[in-house]
Amino acid sequence: MSRFRHLISIDDLSKDDIEYILKKADEFLEIAIKKKKLNLLEGKVLANLFYEPSTRTRMSFEVAMKRLGGDVINMGSVEATSIAKGESLADTIRVVENYADCIVLRHYREGAARFAAEISEVPIINAGDGAGQHPTQTLLDLYTIKRESKLERLKIALIGDLKYSRTIHSLVKALSLFNAEIYLVSPPSLRLPEDLMESAKCVETDLKQAIEEADVLYVTRIQKERFPDEEEYRKVAGSYKITAEMLRNSKAIVMHPLPRVDEISYDVDNLKNAIYFKQAFYGVPVRMAILSEVMG
Amino acid sequence: MSRFRHLISIDDLSKDDIEYILKKADEFLEIAIKKKKLNLLEGKVLANLFYEPSTRTRMSFEVAMKRLGGDVINMGSVEATSIAKGESLADTIRVVENYADCIVLRHYREGAARFAAEISEVPIINAGDGAGQHPTQTLLDLYTIKRESKLERLKIALIGDLKYSRTIHSLVKALSLFNAEIYLVSPPSLRLPEDLMESAKCVETDLKQAIEEADVLYVTRIQKERFPDEEEYRKVAGSYKITAEMLRNSKAIVMHPLPRVDEISYDVDNLKNAIYFKQAFYGVPVRMAILSEVMG
Amino acid sequence: MSRFRHLISIDDLSKDDIEYILKKADEFLEIAIKKKKLNLLEGKVLANLFYEPSTRTRMSFEVAMKRLGGDVINMGSVEATSIAKGESLADTIRVVENYADCIVLRHYREGAARFAAEISEVPIINAGDGAGQHPTQTLLDLYTIKRESKLERLKIALIGDLKYSRTIHSLVKALSLFNAEIYLVSPPSLRLPEDLMESAKCVETDLKQAIEEADVLYVTRIQKERFPDEEEYRKVAGSYKITAEMLRNSKAIVMHPLPRVDEISYDVDNLKNAIYFKQAFYGVPVRMAILSEVMG
Repeated sequence: MSRFRHLISIDDLSKDDIEYILKKADEFLEIAIKKKKLNLLEGKVLANLFYEPSTRTRMSFEVAMKRLGGDVINMGSVEATSIAKGESLADTIRVVENYADCIVLRHYREGAARFAAEISEVPIINAGDGAGQHPTQTLLDLYTIKRESKLERLKIALIGDLKYSRTIHSLVKALSLFNAEIYLVSPPSLRLPEDLMESAKCVETDLKQAIEEADVLYVTRIQKERFPDEEEYRKVAGSYKITAEMLRNSKAIVMHPLPRVDEISYDVDNLKNAIYFKQAFYGVPVRMAILSEVMG
Repeated sequence: MSRFRHLISIDDLSKDDIEYILKKADEFLEIAIKKKKLNLLEGKVLANLFYEPSTRTRMSFEVAMKRLGGDVINMGSVEATSIAKGESLADTIRVVENYADCIVLRHYREGAARFAAEISEVPIINAGDGAGQHPTQTLLDLYTIKRESKLERLKIALIGDLKYSRTIHSLVKALSLFNAEIYLVSPPSLRLPEDLMESAKCVETDLKQAIEEADVLYVTRIQKERFPDEEEYRKVAGSYKITAEMLRNSKAIVMHPLPRVDEISYDVDNLKNAIYFKQAFYGVPVRMAILSEVMG
Repeated sequence: MSRFRHLISIDDLSKDDIEYILKKADEFLEIAIKKKKLNLLEGKVLANLFYEPSTRTRMSFEVAMKRLGGDVINMGSVEATSIAKGESLADTIRVVENYADCIVLRHYREGAARFAAEISEVPIINAGDGAGQHPTQTLLDLYTIKRESKLERLKIALIGDLKYSRTIHSLVKALSLFNAEIYLVSPPSLRLPEDLMESAKCVETDLKQAIEEADVLYVTRIQKERFPDEEEYRKVAGSYKITAEMLRNSKAIVMHPLPRVDEISYDVDNLKNAIYFKQAFYGVPVRMAILSEVMG
């Protein structure tokens, strides 16, 4: 019996559920590192329904499924476009649920995954629904923190766009379950929304202070589109960029959901602090845990 | 020894051939329902050459192949576009026949599949050639009718665009082999072509009468492009739309090749009459039968 | 222990290396012809990163990997486009190297594969980097020559665009290792660059002479874009076109990297001289040899 049938939002999971998944991911870590293959999901078929392009997420689900011995069928974003014209999401789900054992859905509309789960007879895993949720990202973030730092009594700094980043919002909620102390570092116009700030132990601070205090620096991209003009953007973005120089005396690990554009200097890559590529890799054992849970 | 080498047109099959395939599909039905895997085509490679986008057809071929233990390589429609610029279909076939054990071809040009079959050393399965044929659709339609109603002494109503729908044309020809009584329900401008009408036991009627008499209601989409203006279209399309209310006292099953746009009301979905998603699913065992026939 | 870790340029390989690969390809030829499957790379995952569309190359790598029992994940060119906007190639490589056991990279920028190899912890195989290299093409060309003609004391005519074709440039360098006599047949404006001409035993001649003397006719496409106007192009291109008539008394085999547009008449296809489709097929055993070498 699996703990959950679908995975739609991190909010649906208790602290216990989360710990269960992270522990399960540990069981698959060795397989993922050594790039071996289990036969746990032999004969099962995963359908990737991506209505928006994605590389990292789609490929890591595909690898996770294949390392478990299963098969994958992909609906590309081009096809999705042509579908979008004529067919309702409900109809597509009702067709694909008969082909596959599980559907990974990325959709441009918030709430799409929840809606799909309501009608689907096979498990739906939300791989991002517009401004909504992306729970496997949050789980791999938590897994990275657990492996590379610690989940209990964590001090974490969230840096960059805290207003619009769905990754940040989900992470704040999940971290509140673990009583993390959260340092918020953002431009005034991109502060964390009030309700989220109140849901966890949050304190606003500056980059220097954050680097001194935190165990984890979680950096997100500041998007140009949020600013009235490019000069204003550049001034702001520049002052939230992490460089090797800044980390000279710091033991904090640096995380980033990727893709990175300019918010972490390339000279950070070679420091021990840089964990972001490992973080992307942790998506494999975490997704193996989720896939085996809903289909196993 | 297989009964046929290529599958290009439903017209190439005798009644006996069709019954043979439908019976063979029965053997795979259990596997497809339980989503199990056979090793019948282990080590075989299917190449999907789709010059036009398709989700349902491509994915169901892919699932069918994987449930038989085989592998699939896909040529995406983007690549097809770039191929279309420079290379003849003949050259592409001559390259891909050396990579794969079977080619599923969807092409925008009528006759493309027949042409490909003439030069290919591996089996060609036509997955739609422009205004031409789409025989695996017809076979899954027949299989659905056989499973959910009956093939002999069938009364079937064909509803909507009977003039341009290639699905309808192929179905009429196939049904004539089984002596079906066919009720035709269409706008005056979208009537079934004369020669087809003469090839089977056809009678034109209205929607109400059809629902009362028929075992099967086969609905197709009426396309906006067929009408001089949008208002005219809406008036016509609206009067061929199936609703739950209409089916209140009917035992007729409702079929549709999908995608559906607006020609079957969503309140029909929960009725026992609604068979269209099951119909899409039957594409899997039927395609398993075909793939195992040409490659087994 | 493998002879090479990455495969970036044909220039990195000694004559001995090349002979080793061609010999290894022989071991896989039977498997490729009979379309069987080995389990040599069972459990391994190949990532196809194609930043430019490709059918032949991508599909033949995919088939080669599957015939060896491995799995493939594809990054399509659409996704690549969206990546190209935001993420550096280095970051993409650092993510994908953790997912896969080997990366096949096609990129629009010359030097991209070399750069990727410098940072990647898994083998990189160059599948074309802009105007740069495409070493698996050269290896399959050499394999074709070895199988269908002879590598030692070869007389080969290179016909068409000798100035811009990267396929031709790599082939000239490789053939110089085997002391081939090379006949150059091109429009004056598309002659082989001087330095390449000096690196091998080259002599410029005309098409008639070349056909009389050569064991192999290697034809490449003359691109319209190279000419000031279309009429000029047509005149020139027409005089380098190979027809069945020209080959009447010739035993020379005709090769072409494909896609062919108009430079070999279709009536050549049925002659014994026509080897170009076989040449495309030889990509499978050659790529099997390379994949098994870097991952085996």
